[in-house]
Amino acid sequence: MKAIWTAAVAAAALIALPAAAQNFAKPEDAIKYRKASFTVMAAHFGTLGAMANGRAPYDAKAAADAAAVVEVMAKLPWAGFTAGSDKGDTRAKPEIWTQQAKFKEVADKNGAEITKLAAAARTGNLDNLKAAFGPTAASCKACHDNFRKD
Amino acid sequence: MKAIWTAAVAAAALIALPAAAQNFAKPEDAIKYRKASFTVMAAHFGTLGAMANGRAPYDAKAAADAAAVVEVMAKLPWAGFTAGSDKGDTRAKPEIWTQQAKFKEVADKNGAEITKLAAAARTGNLDNLKAAFGPTAASCKACHDNFRKD
Repeated sequence: MKAIWTAAVAAAALIALPAAAQNFAKPEDAIKYRKASFTVMAAHFGTLGAMANGRAPYDAKAAADAAAVVEVMAKLPWAGFTAGSDKGDTRAKPEIWTQQAKFKEVADKNGAEITKLAAAARTGNLDNLKAAFGPTAASCKACHDNFRKD
Repeated sequence: MKAIWTAAVAAAALIALPAAAQNFAKPEDAIKYRKASFTVMAAHFGTLGAMANGRAPYDAKAAADAAAVVEVMAKLPWAGFTAGSDKGDTRAKPEIWTQQAKFKEVADKNGAEITKLAAAARTGNLDNLKAAFGPTAASCKACHDNFRKD
């Protein structure tokens, strides 16, 4: 079981590029896609947060499953920040496009924390999940603070 | 490489239950979640369709990656059809709740076709992708025709 999940994450890591291969006919399609990716990611991240913060009973399998979804989703939204999709129904700040190196840096940091979170979730140990959750949430917040409007 | 993808799918199959473990504070949260899941699934399904129908050049790795995302996403939205989420910003028909067995049947059929599609995508052969794409698209349409408003 653990070996299968490890393989899943190894495989998930290979899913880094398909998002970059996404093509969007219109900027609003890219906006809708990236928002949807974040929505799904946030829902499953919330499942982990509820367990990490004691608002829900710890369920090792549910936690590992949720983390696996988060890990796959975390690779997707970035492809949706296409040229021209800074305008529209979005809270994305212009800095995403004017400070691309910094945006990539915080996104990569978030990805690294999520990888650690998923590894922690797969250990089946609540203390490991708790220890990894905070830094991951902080890495989400760092991007929101810098690149998302209130 | 192929072994890793095979493991990924085996692992993805284990992600069947986390969605059922999702909790939604409000019906509109469930609606937003299921729509987001379908949006992400459709984007990557569209990548496969473009290749299957010759509108985009065939890229074996991109196809396998897209199919892997579709396969994970296909397990998620169903948990969003919660009691009370038949009203709101949704095209879901009441029959989803009044004909649950039939809804589950078409959803399961869709899942089975997507599993076959992902297997076909992993073969790295465009003809296999083309052969699997049509039946999968038909299984999406069957659900839309019966359970989604125009």
